[in-house]
Amino acid sequence: MAKNDAPKTAITPTRAEDYAEWYQQVVRAADLAESSPVRGCMVIKPWGYALWENIQRELDRMFKATGHKNAYFPLFIPKSFLEKEAEHVEGFAKECAIVTHHRLVAGPEGGLVPDPEAKLEEPLIVRPTSETIIGAAFASWVQSYRDLPLLINQWANVVRWELRTRLFLRTTEFLWQEGHTAHATEEEARAETMQMLDVYTTFAEEFMAMPVIKGPKTASERFPGAVDTFAIEAMMQDRKALQAGTSHFLGQNFAKASGIKFQTAKETEEYAWTTSWGVSTRLIGGLLMTHADDDGLILPPRLAPAHVVILPVLRGDDTKAKVMEYVDAVAAELRSTSYGGRPIEVEVDKRDIRGGDKQWEWIKKGAPIRIEIGPRDVDGNVVMVARRDRGTKDKATLGRAELVTKIPEILADIQSGLLTKAKQHRAANTKRIDDMKDFEKFFTAKNEDKPEIHGGFALAHWSGEPEVEAHLKDKFKVTIRCIPLSGIDGVADAKDLQEEGRCIVSGKPSRQRVVFAKSY
Amino acid sequence: MAKNDAPKTAITPTRAEDYAEWYQQVVRAADLAESSPVRGCMVIKPWGYALWENIQRELDRMFKATGHKNAYFPLFIPKSFLEKEAEHVEGFAKECAIVTHHRLVAGPEGGLVPDPEAKLEEPLIVRPTSETIIGAAFASWVQSYRDLPLLINQWANVVRWELRTRLFLRTTEFLWQEGHTAHATEEEARAETMQMLDVYTTFAEEFMAMPVIKGPKTASERFPGAVDTFAIEAMMQDRKALQAGTSHFLGQNFAKASGIKFQTAKETEEYAWTTSWGVSTRLIGGLLMTHADDDGLILPPRLAPAHVVILPVLRGDDTKAKVMEYVDAVAAELRSTSYGGRPIEVEVDKRDIRGGDKQWEWIKKGAPIRIEIGPRDVDGNVVMVARRDRGTKDKATLGRAELVTKIPEILADIQSGLLTKAKQHRAANTKRIDDMKDFEKFFTAKNEDKPEIHGGFALAHWSGEPEVEAHLKDKFKVTIRCIPLSGIDGVADAKDLQEEGRCIVSGKPSRQRVVFAKSY
Ligand SMILES: [Zn+2]
Ligand SMILES: [Zn+2]
Repeated sequence: MAKNDAPKTAITPTRAEDYAEWYQQVVRAADLAESSPVRGCMVIKPWGYALWENIQRELDRMFKATGHKNAYFPLFIPKSFLEKEAEHVEGFAKECAIVTHHRLVAGPEGGLVPDPEAKLEEPLIVRPTSETIIGAAFASWVQSYRDLPLLINQWANVVRWELRTRLFLRTTEFLWQEGHTAHATEEEARAETMQMLDVYTTFAEEFMAMPVIKGPKTASERFPGAVDTFAIEAMMQDRKALQAGTSHFLGQNFAKASGIKFQTAKETEEYAWTTSWGVSTRLIGGLLMTHADDDGLILPPRLAPAHVVILPVLRGDDTKAKVMEYVDAVAAELRSTSYGGRPIEVEVDKRDIRGGDKQWEWIKKGAPIRIEIGPRDVDGNVVMVARRDRGTKDKATLGRAELVTKIPEILADIQSGLLTKAKQHRAANTKRIDDMKDFEKFFTAKNEDKPEIHGGFALAHWSGEPEVEAHLKDKFKVTIRCIPLSGIDGVADAKDLQEEGRCIVSGKPSRQRVVFAKSY
Repeated sequence: MAKNDAPKTAITPTRAEDYAEWYQQVVRAADLAESSPVRGCMVIKPWGYALWENIQRELDRMFKATGHKNAYFPLFIPKSFLEKEAEHVEGFAKECAIVTHHRLVAGPEGGLVPDPEAKLEEPLIVRPTSETIIGAAFASWVQSYRDLPLLINQWANVVRWELRTRLFLRTTEFLWQEGHTAHATEEEARAETMQMLDVYTTFAEEFMAMPVIKGPKTASERFPGAVDTFAIEAMMQDRKALQAGTSHFLGQNFAKASGIKFQTAKETEEYAWTTSWGVSTRLIGGLLMTHADDDGLILPPRLAPAHVVILPVLRGDDTKAKVMEYVDAVAAELRSTSYGGRPIEVEVDKRDIRGGDKQWEWIKKGAPIRIEIGPRDVDGNVVMVARRDRGTKDKATLGRAELVTKIPEILADIQSGLLTKAKQHRAANTKRIDDMKDFEKFFTAKNEDKPEIHGGFALAHWSGEPEVEAHLKDKFKVTIRCIPLSGIDGVADAKDLQEEGRCIVSGKPSRQRVVFAKSY
C-alpha cells in the first residue's frame, strides 16, 4: 500500500529485523532518555522521568502502606565498610567509582588537576548499594527488641561501573529504591522478604501490565552476602528474561558485619535479621520491551504521564478560536474525571507543526489515547478517538457527552489488554522441556550469524547441582531465572511445576521444574 | 516551681545559653538527622526525610504549575566541563569530590586499593551544581526558537567539600532541586528568574511560615558565572540571616560556554539566555531556627509529616479495648478531614512506654497538635487537645463532634501564628541605621568571650562601592544580604527602602537602603 519506499513503521529497524537496535530507537523516538557525555551515564528526559515519577509514586504508596518509612543515607561509603562483609566485597567492591581527592588545582600545563595535597586518607566509594552504610546506622539505632522491626526505604542514585551499557537496562549510574529492614526473628525477616516480593509482583502486573514469575534464585545468582535472593522475572518480546526486582533475605550476615545487635525481651543479646529489596530505572526498559511495537512505545495507562493527548486540527484562522475553546472544554471535563485513583492527565498539543508529525510523535511516545478535534467535530459535538493499542488509522467517533464515562473505560480496557497480550506472548513461548535435544533446539538460533528471535522460558527439571547450571550457562548462555513459586497463566500453575522428575542433564531426581532462559 | 535541679526545658542548653549547641540538640531531639561515618555527610532520619518529602511535594507542584518538567542528569561531570566557564571554575572547581579510579583490587597488605590499571583518563567530578552538564544537553536539545523556552528542574544530591559542617545548614552532600531554563530573549529569562524568586518567597512564607526579604545580591555574593543572583533571606532566632534560596539570571554566559544556540524566527543564529535556581535541605535548618524553642522543634502544619498525634492514656487492661476503639475512630474521622489541600495526617502512638516520655517525644519532634485520650475522655465523649505553639501544660477539652471542624481551624491558626511571631521577631530586630557608631554597636556583642545573641538586620545606605562592603565584612563579619525588593512588615515597605541617602561608610550618594547582617 505504501506509495514509496519509506518504511511502513515509525521505528526502523523493526523488532524482527534487529531487536537490540529497535530498543535503542524506541528509547530515542519516545524521547525517554539519551546517552550523556559521561561514559555509561544517561540523561533521563522529561517523558522518561515523568514515567519514573509515576513508578515511584505508586511503589512509594505501597511501601508506606506496608509500614515502611523513607530516609536518606550518604552517597559515599568508606572503603573499609565494603571490606566488612566478605562476599559483598567480592560482588560489589570491584567495578565502582572511587573518590580519592577533594580538591582541584591549576595544573602545570593549564587546566585543573586533582590536588596532591588533597588526597583522602581513606578512599570513598560511590555507593553501588547501601547495605554497609545503612547497617552502620542501624547498629546505633537498634538497642532493644522494642526498636524492631526497623522498616526503612531509600530512593537514591547508585553507581556500578559497567563496561557495556544500554539505556535503562544497564547504566553506570541508575536510580532506584532500596529497602532495608531489621527484625528480631528469622521468621519475621523471611516474611518481610516475601511480602516485598509480593509487592513487586503486584506492581509489575497491575501497574506495568508486565506478568512476572516470582521465586528464589539459585546459589550462583544470589546477591553477594545474602542467604536467599528472590526475584521477579519477566519475558521480553525477544523471549529473553528480565530480572525486574529482587528481595533478599540477608540472615544475620550483614548484622554481624555491621554490629546490629539488640537486647531481647529475655535480656539476652542477639544479632538482628535483615532484608534488602530493590527495583530501579531498569523497570522502564522492561516496560518498553514488554509493550512497545514497531511504531514505538506503548504505555500502560496506570503509569502513563499523560493518559490522553488532544490534538486540535486547525484549518485556517476562522475556525481556530472555536476549535480551541471546544478543546479546552473537553480537556477540563476529562481532567475532572479520574482513572485508577488519579485525575485523568490530559496533554493538549497546541504546537504549530504539521498534524501528521504531531500525531506520530504521540504514537511513538506511547500515549494511551489520542483525541483529534477539528471544526466538523465541534459542529457535531463529537471527538475522534484513537487508541495506542489499536492500528494507527483505527479511529472512532465518540459523542462529547459520553467522554467522561467512556475514556476511563477505554483506559481500563487498554490496561487489561496489555497484560493479557503479554501473558499470551509468555504462554506461547514457555515450554516444558524434558529432553536435552529439545532444550538445545529451543535455545539455538537457526541463523547463527544474525540470530533471529528464538527460545523463551524452558520449564525443565534440575537436580540442584551447580555443575549442571554452569554447564548449561556455558554451552547455551542459558541461566536458571528462578525456582518458580508462582504459575504461568495458560501453561502451568505453581503446583504443576512442583512435580517430581529427573534432571534434564544429570538424570538425578528433581523436586520441581525451574525456569531456564537467556536473559538481560 | 521545679522540685529538683532537672532542667526546666526539654532542650539543654537553651537558645540563650548556647545557640549553636541548642541547634544541634534540637536536630537530635527531633530525630531529624545525624552525622554519618562519612566526613561531612548526614543521615536524614525518617522524621526529617518526611519533612523534606513535604517540602518537595509542594515545591514540585509549584514548579509544574509554572510549566517546568523534571528530568535527571548524570551525577558525574567531566573535569573539562568545569573548565569551560571561567568564573564557574573559580567558584566550583575547587572543593569537590574527584573520582579518579573505577576499580578496587586486593592490596599488597590485604584490604582493597584503587586499581592503578583502572585510572580514569579524565577525572570525574561529583556534581557541585549542574549548569555545565545540563548545558551540554541543552545545546543538543535546542535548535530553533520553537524549542524555547526549555523549562527543566532536577531533584538531586550534590557534593561540595566543606571543611566545617553543620547538619542541614552546611554538609558535604546535600539534597536539593536545581531549575535550569533556556529562553529566546533576555527579557523572558529575566522574567523567569523573578518568577522563581517569587515562587520561593511564596513557599517560604505560606508553607514554612518563614518571612523572607527578596532581592539581588551584590556582585561579590553572586553565583559564579551569573549576571545577577537573587536570593530570599530570612532572619533566624539568633538574628543572623539565612540565605534560603537563590535564583540566577545567567545571561548568555553558560549558553556561550556550552554552545546553546538557536535559529531565530528571522533565521539568524543566537545564543540562548539561561537561568538557574535552587533550594536545598538547608531549608530544614532554616525552618528549625525560625520556629523551634527550648522544648524542641515546632513544625508549621502545612509541612508537618503528622498534623495530629494521638496518645492513648491507658490505665489498666479493663479499659484498654474501649480506649483503643475510641482512638481508632477519632483517627479515622480526622483522616477523612483535610487541611491545606491534603488529608489530615494522624499518627497514633500505641507504643508501650511511659505516657510522659511519649508526650515529650512528640513535643520535641514538633507535632502541631497532640490529642490525649483516656478512659474518662471516652466516657465524656471528649478529647484533650494540646497545641505545640502553646505551653506544654496548656490543654483544652474538645467535644468529639467538634473535632472535624475544630482541628483544621486550629492547624490554620498555628500556621498563621507562627508566621506572625516570626515577623514580629524580625521587625523587633531590624533597624534603620544611619550612623557608623550605631552600626558598630548593633553588630558588637557585649560579651566578647561568649557573644550573646545580638544584632539583626541593619537597613543602611550603601553607595555600591565594593570596598565599603569588603571593609564592613572584614571589620564586623557583616555582609549585604540583599538589595531589598520587598518590604519588612512592621518596619518599612519596599518603597521606603528605595529612598535616596548617603552611604554609611563613604558618605557617597546611595539610591536605597540595603540589608546588612551576619549570616549562616
Ligand atoms: Zn539485588
Ligand atoms: Zn546558587
